Amino acid sequence: MSEPAEINDPEEGLTFLPKFDAAGLVTCVATDAATGEVLMVAHMNDDALRKTVASGEDWYDSRSRKALWRKGESSGHTQRVVEMRMDCDQDAIWIRVEQHGAACHTGRHSCFYRKIESADGGARLSFVDADRQFDPNQVYRK
Amino acid sequence: MSEPAEINDPEEGLTFLPKFDAAGLVTCVATDAATGEVLMVAHMNDDALRKTVASGEDWYDSRSRKALWRKGESSGHTQRVVEMRMDCDQDAIWIRVEQHGAACHTGRHSCFYRKIESADGGARLSFVDADRQFDPNQVYRK
Repeated sequence: MSEPAEINDPEEGLTFLPKFDAAGLVTCVATDAATGEVLMVAHMNDDALRKTVASGEDWYDSRSRKALWRKGESSGHTQRVVEMRMDCDQDAIWIRVEQHGAACHTGRHSCFYRKIESADGGARLSFVDADRQFDPNQVYRK
Repeated sequence: MSEPAEINDPEEGLTFLPKFDAAGLVTCVATDAATGEVLMVAHMNDDALRKTVASGEDWYDSRSRKALWRKGESSGHTQRVVEMRMDCDQDAIWIRVEQHGAACHTGRHSCFYRKIESADGGARLSFVDADRQFDPNQVYRK
């Protein structure tokens, strides 16, 4: 057991005290539980976070859609939660997931399909692991 | 070669076009290149990002310190960049690093040393991989 003084300390305590930003969001990093690859970075509000913890399926808050959405709702490519972790100051969450299909809306397994390289005093991108698992025009057609 | 129309497309192009938020920051996820473990989530402004790309050492922007800092500047626990990746809409960066010592200011290897578990309709935390590699009171003493 922790000492009573420590239990509500955000860094050393065991109380779940997510620190939402001014927009009411925490940052979430989803990694592939099988490969360790970072799949996506997204945001959860309090509701999305509660639903994710309770259901074991990833819910996010869409800043563009202004609505809660279950990952894979449109595409069928869902994320099952394997483990959730909180960071030291409780403003970021790491979720190890079992990814069904592709995590990225462009059809790639991960959103991180381009490498950043130093070039001419600046930077440029190059494709890596950029094969599409689905055609977004087919999956998200209206 | 990409078609000229695509080269500046943030999602399908190869031009480095980081999308900074209202505070001038992009989100960065650092993972341990050896184990795939997520070490920390932090932020970079344009300057920090340029310095990181150019130097191969991680620089971040501290919202609390209001200054640029090189990771490990105080603690000696630096991060050498192994690979940097950009996400689809260019507002998040994944950095695979070689972590020297501990990444977390609390002395743990990773900032994610607590698991989130469903409990009584809510959530609670429990320690996991929470051994300290250094004593923060020793390392950050004034």
